[in-house]
Amino acid sequence: MNTIPFEVQTLAYAERVHESFARQGAMQTLGARLGLVAPGAVDIELDWAVGLTQQHGFLHAGMVATALDSACGYAGLTLMAEDAAVLTIEFKINLLAPARGERFRMEGRVLKPGRTITVCEGRAFALDGSQEKLVATMGCTLMAVTGRENIRH
Amino acid sequence: MNTIPFEVQTLAYAERVHESFARQGAMQTLGARLGLVAPGAVDIELDWAVGLTQQHGFLHAGMVATALDSACGYAGLTLMAEDAAVLTIEFKINLLAPARGERFRMEGRVLKPGRTITVCEGRAFALDGSQEKLVATMGCTLMAVTGRENIRH
Amino acid sequence: MNTIPFEVQTLAYAERVHESFARQGAMQTLGARLGLVAPGAVDIELDWAVGLTQQHGFLHAGMVATALDSACGYAGLTLMAEDAAVLTIEFKINLLAPARGERFRMEGRVLKPGRTITVCEGRAFALDGSQEKLVATMGCTLMAVTGRENIRH
Amino acid sequence: MNTIPFEVQTLAYAERVHESFARQGAMQTLGARLGLVAPGAVDIELDWAVGLTQQHGFLHAGMVATALDSACGYAGLTLMAEDAAVLTIEFKINLLAPARGERFRMEGRVLKPGRTITVCEGRAFALDGSQEKLVATMGCTLMAVTGRENIRH
Repeated sequence: MNTIPFEVQTLAYAERVHESFARQGAMQTLGARLGLVAPGAVDIELDWAVGLTQQHGFLHAGMVATALDSACGYAGLTLMAEDAAVLTIEFKINLLAPARGERFRMEGRVLKPGRTITVCEGRAFALDGSQEKLVATMGCTLMAVTGRENIRH
Repeated sequence: MNTIPFEVQTLAYAERVHESFARQGAMQTLGARLGLVAPGAVDIELDWAVGLTQQHGFLHAGMVATALDSACGYAGLTLMAEDAAVLTIEFKINLLAPARGERFRMEGRVLKPGRTITVCEGRAFALDGSQEKLVATMGCTLMAVTGRENIRH
Repeated sequence: MNTIPFEVQTLAYAERVHESFARQGAMQTLGARLGLVAPGAVDIELDWAVGLTQQHGFLHAGMVATALDSACGYAGLTLMAEDAAVLTIEFKINLLAPARGERFRMEGRVLKPGRTITVCEGRAFALDGSQEKLVATMGCTLMAVTGRENIRH
Repeated sequence: MNTIPFEVQTLAYAERVHESFARQGAMQTLGARLGLVAPGAVDIELDWAVGLTQQHGFLHAGMVATALDSACGYAGLTLMAEDAAVLTIEFKINLLAPARGERFRMEGRVLKPGRTITVCEGRAFALDGSQEKLVATMGCTLMAVTGRENIRH
């Protein structure tokens, strides 16, 4: 969704994302894995599991949102200063189709980086065999936080 | 958030909510319990658990959203026709404070019911001992679906 | 929507809102007037006019949003430091009913004030004779900006 | 933002958009003009004017939203049945940069068309001389309405 290359503020951007991701209990609960980790772009992948479903057996909208929020948050973190942590201020998700599939890929992309505020977009795809389908889109606002006790990336 | 009593279309509204809730694998993953189930109003409660956290140990915004989305969806379902299922079209969440607490209560409230479209509001509270704090608000749009294969409430 | 009284940082909060409102060309185009101006709460009123309509003769959703955004923005400004200007980061509006009426009142309320980020809620009411009807709700995120050239409240 | 061509349900889709646009008093107030009108894609253009400004002289976020909402709504209308009218259910806008410019172009694009619900994305660009800058993005949910008194496209 973005064609302008972003500049990173630390060469350790990918390492920081992997470290932080490993500390998210929620990502382990989702069985989520990091895919692409590039400046301004992070993908998260996961498999369907009964523990992630709503009443019709599709992925729960909130679980789609959980993976999209992390993808967007980490996309933003790749561009932040080395001592910054990232917090989500708000996000909005549109569910375009039931999240029915064997696997899912959530793409987080920075639309506009900023010193304090970063805006991201996310897209969630359901994969069945070789087919993939767009099932949700997210708009997300992040804040870079520095110097707060108990908060590191 | 609403003072006008809503009319139900089936006396079995609470039973339907409990049945559907029991089929949501995601609610079991969250360790979530149904609290209040009244016409246009549903509360969901859960305890802090490491499997629900983001990297700072707070409840992951997506997990807050998962419980709020279910609370809003079931609040909407209480007012829908007996043969209707409920799907979330979109929601937006504002994170007002880190979701830090021992327990959490998510309140879903119908703002405007409709034959096809229902609009809800949700509020998430973090509880520590006897203190409670508003940590997130949600705006949510639901659609009542009838006659679709594989979708029941 | 909020029962905790907010503390102001300047006694000139109402004067600042009136001054800033008078500089908004958009408010004059809407024929909008300031109603309530209290700490964390601002109302804006306007009359129906053909220049504000969509194709069915109702108030255009964007015009409802324009007045709600100003009401929320000024509600936020009442609580900000004397040298701060207010910018809207994002807002979301749910249209609950066609905005049909003789007059309209848009209420902006601070939900959570902050040094950098303030979150507000807005409600738009359509008035016909003595009847009033909720037609839209808004969730809105504001940023306090200081020290930027060309931006004053 | 979309690469799959959409199918129209009436060859008069562009005529319907122009007719409806001409009935929007708000578009005249904005001095707005229709640009591109294609299946699933509508552009709206307008010039800066003092009557559209917020307190710093930039385009008011609500005026940006008004043009984006019409662009999205008409993008959706191009794909709807001949007897359908379009109503906005909700939209969310992220303001990425102050809307400062001589002219503006708002792009509305259908992301997912549907019999009842259509989801669109919008982007607003500020133009100064030959430079253009992305200043806002919108996510928007539309409903196709048929058979309601007093509502035609």
